[in-house]
Amino acid sequence: MQKIEHIGIAVKDIVESNKLFAKLLNTEHYKMEEVASEGVITSFFQVGDVKIELLQATNESSAIHSFVEKKGEGVHHIAFAVEDVNAELSRLKSEGFDAIHQEAKDGADGKVIAFLHPKSTNHVLTEICSDKHVTE
Amino acid sequence: MQKIEHIGIAVKDIVESNKLFAKLLNTEHYKMEEVASEGVITSFFQVGDVKIELLQATNESSAIHSFVEKKGEGVHHIAFAVEDVNAELSRLKSEGFDAIHQEAKDGADGKVIAFLHPKSTNHVLTEICSDKHVTE
Repeated sequence: MQKIEHIGIAVKDIVESNKLFAKLLNTEHYKMEEVASEGVITSFFQVGDVKIELLQATNESSAIHSFVEKKGEGVHHIAFAVEDVNAELSRLKSEGFDAIHQEAKDGADGKVIAFLHPKSTNHVLTEICSDKHVTE
Repeated sequence: MQKIEHIGIAVKDIVESNKLFAKLLNTEHYKMEEVASEGVITSFFQVGDVKIELLQATNESSAIHSFVEKKGEGVHHIAFAVEDVNAELSRLKSEGFDAIHQEAKDGADGKVIAFLHPKSTNHVLTEICSDKHVTE
């Protein structure tokens, strides 16, 4: 893991949460992006060299919808930047971690991503990601 | 907020979790520290310029004990580095955030800290911190 790339936070109303986090972080979000395949609309804030990603579900089959229904709003996942998602997935699986995705897939923000199952990571939903051009 | 200083993760068995996170992060923890006033033993990992802080309760009146009982293991708080905790607390309170601590208090890792109430921050328990010498 090279660095923490972003922290994902599940919210119910991204427009209201954009205002709240702008006050909290004392900076405005710098972009919003829909990831239709995941059923989410996202917004990004920059804090130092780490991003805060807010996520609101856009349909009821979205994982963010289920998360908010079960646990309410709050921290959803931590994403770590790695050099190569597939190589890091192999290392992590060989260490005994359960992968939700068996290979890199497209994510928001020009990244390829994969998630580890939180049951194997002390219930911290863990994403690894790299810039798309690195893996493709 | 200058940067994300650390992410706090509540665990049940810090010795076992040290091993797990060493595998996950591909780096060993670099120190352990008890904060008796908070009823916790902590350990720290460095990932880029952000720390991962594992926290295990050392008694049943610890907030980490209650958290793990209610919610299980997982992300407990996000800590942001600020220049001056008391000045930032004033700014945040003027923006409508509820502070758990009304002024900076001693925390782990040579810091002074204060927490905001998660009800006012989309259920993200938020710490602000600065090096002790800045505020004293």
